[in-house]
Amino acid sequence: MLDESYIEELVKKKFPLKSTIFPTGIGDDAAVFKIKSDKIVFSCDSQVEGIHFDLKYLTPEQLAFRALSVALSDLCAMGAKPKFFSNSLFLPKRTSKAFINKLFNGFKNGCNYYSVDLVGGNVSMSESLMLDIGVFGEVLNDRFKERKASRVGDLIYVTGKIGDGSLGLDLLRKKKRFTFKEKLIISKYKSPRARVKLGLFLGQLKFLTSMIDITDGLSLDLRRLLGPISSGRGATLIWEDIPKTDCISSPVSTSKLMKSVLSGGDDYELLFTIKKTRAKHFEDLCKKNNFKVFRIGFVDSTANLSLIRGGRAISLKSQGFVHRF
Amino acid sequence: MLDESYIEELVKKKFPLKSTIFPTGIGDDAAVFKIKSDKIVFSCDSQVEGIHFDLKYLTPEQLAFRALSVALSDLCAMGAKPKFFSNSLFLPKRTSKAFINKLFNGFKNGCNYYSVDLVGGNVSMSESLMLDIGVFGEVLNDRFKERKASRVGDLIYVTGKIGDGSLGLDLLRKKKRFTFKEKLIISKYKSPRARVKLGLFLGQLKFLTSMIDITDGLSLDLRRLLGPISSGRGATLIWEDIPKTDCISSPVSTSKLMKSVLSGGDDYELLFTIKKTRAKHFEDLCKKNNFKVFRIGFVDSTANLSLIRGGRAISLKSQGFVHRF
Repeated sequence: MLDESYIEELVKKKFPLKSTIFPTGIGDDAAVFKIKSDKIVFSCDSQVEGIHFDLKYLTPEQLAFRALSVALSDLCAMGAKPKFFSNSLFLPKRTSKAFINKLFNGFKNGCNYYSVDLVGGNVSMSESLMLDIGVFGEVLNDRFKERKASRVGDLIYVTGKIGDGSLGLDLLRKKKRFTFKEKLIISKYKSPRARVKLGLFLGQLKFLTSMIDITDGLSLDLRRLLGPISSGRGATLIWEDIPKTDCISSPVSTSKLMKSVLSGGDDYELLFTIKKTRAKHFEDLCKKNNFKVFRIGFVDSTANLSLIRGGRAISLKSQGFVHRF
Repeated sequence: MLDESYIEELVKKKFPLKSTIFPTGIGDDAAVFKIKSDKIVFSCDSQVEGIHFDLKYLTPEQLAFRALSVALSDLCAMGAKPKFFSNSLFLPKRTSKAFINKLFNGFKNGCNYYSVDLVGGNVSMSESLMLDIGVFGEVLNDRFKERKASRVGDLIYVTGKIGDGSLGLDLLRKKKRFTFKEKLIISKYKSPRARVKLGLFLGQLKFLTSMIDITDGLSLDLRRLLGPISSGRGATLIWEDIPKTDCISSPVSTSKLMKSVLSGGDDYELLFTIKKTRAKHFEDLCKKNNFKVFRIGFVDSTANLSLIRGGRAISLKSQGFVHRF
């Protein structure tokens, strides 16, 4: 039978202590570790079965890797360098050792992929499966990026296709067999990648005025990026400029595609603003460094969001995933 | 209706940004903060409804304060100075604003009592109520205390009465009206206090060889402190020397008292070992500083635990609360 000591032993074996980093290992009351920068960047993010994920669609390995990616995405949105993570596990009765092994294989894959180390965790019983991931990073050259510091006139960019995450989940819910192109979209849902390198690059740019990651939906996260309506800042997006999927074989209705792109969430792309006068320089710099970025609109003084589609402006509601109780 | 933005606003109002500490406030993707020491001490600890607590016995204020205390106790066991905490909340449907207000009043009380700051959090829906608390501390003079570094002959100490936590919970489960003395015991369960000052003091002592906090039961945590049986280290405890409750008015059976003291858990007292040759010096130092400590036994080479009671040695099983799935 699984008990917490099994997990502790597994962690010690799979995530060996790196004596150069940690004065103490896993398995004590608390972890002791160093971060070179004097500024620590911390975030925590949870995945709850039935709310954020369904084990019908994700293997335990994918779940763990995905939970880590989603949490790390918040560090990327600050322009920080991920270093460590912790995992608090809430496990239902009859969780098996096989399941735990797979889950920790996923965490191990995440450690390797993102070059981060597991520094702590906790195990509790609960009614359903939940993961709470804490992530720690450092800032380089004392620079990091916040939300809400954009100015009217700044240009708005994203780092990749928007909408694929929620389209992928939709496909999983509706079908059992998928075309090659559909599988690509599904993999964006199952295995999002936190934009570590791009985040670090963007975090160092003085003319980047604000940044966030798209978690809950483009329009909702754009509102969060701009700050409250009382800030006076609004934004106009150009529908045709937003990078979207081009690989749905079965036709998706326009309204469905718009919903996925504008409020679908689960994208984990970065959304940020650049001073207009530096846009050309910025885009050249990205090209030189082989980073793909997409200009999708601009900050305006309307306090509201609008979308220009086919040359016509329509009002855009700030919508997406919000926990309501 | 409660939604996550209500909680974000509440947190911003109640836990205002201290610009001297944080370059950025709560409400961004991640928190950025400084810790003076170059060593960060981190731990996370969860409280799950139905497993760790029952809202029949705790108000939301008590629950939050208690969850923070329990998590901070792990930092105390390292001899670290608590600085910051984060709270990941898992809330069931129909959680009310009134409940959330009370919960955050409890966290606020904890901030004031422990001089710590809230630096982040997360809100998710879930089937039952759960709190996952992350705590951050720093070590002074580069010194901190681990488990498993005791030597045969070291003396074993605790910082306060053992068993009251679980006796208090028992009383709550069995009765509705309590004597004054019973209320004192119950308050040890409801409102444990992390041993911050004592932990810091003990953490600086070179002749203190190992330390842990008693969470899951004296005998179980003693085993954890000593390390595995393969270490060869065992311990002998003197029953009469263990500080125990003296304020149960209704008589408690000896077997019941023994169970509470030896495997009850929920004590959050520190359990540590001191080099025998420094014991006199140590006890004098504690007296001088007005710290109460109690010598309860010694580390031996039997690999097992024993208890001397009424002059007779009996074998002591390492027992306590373990999550089993």
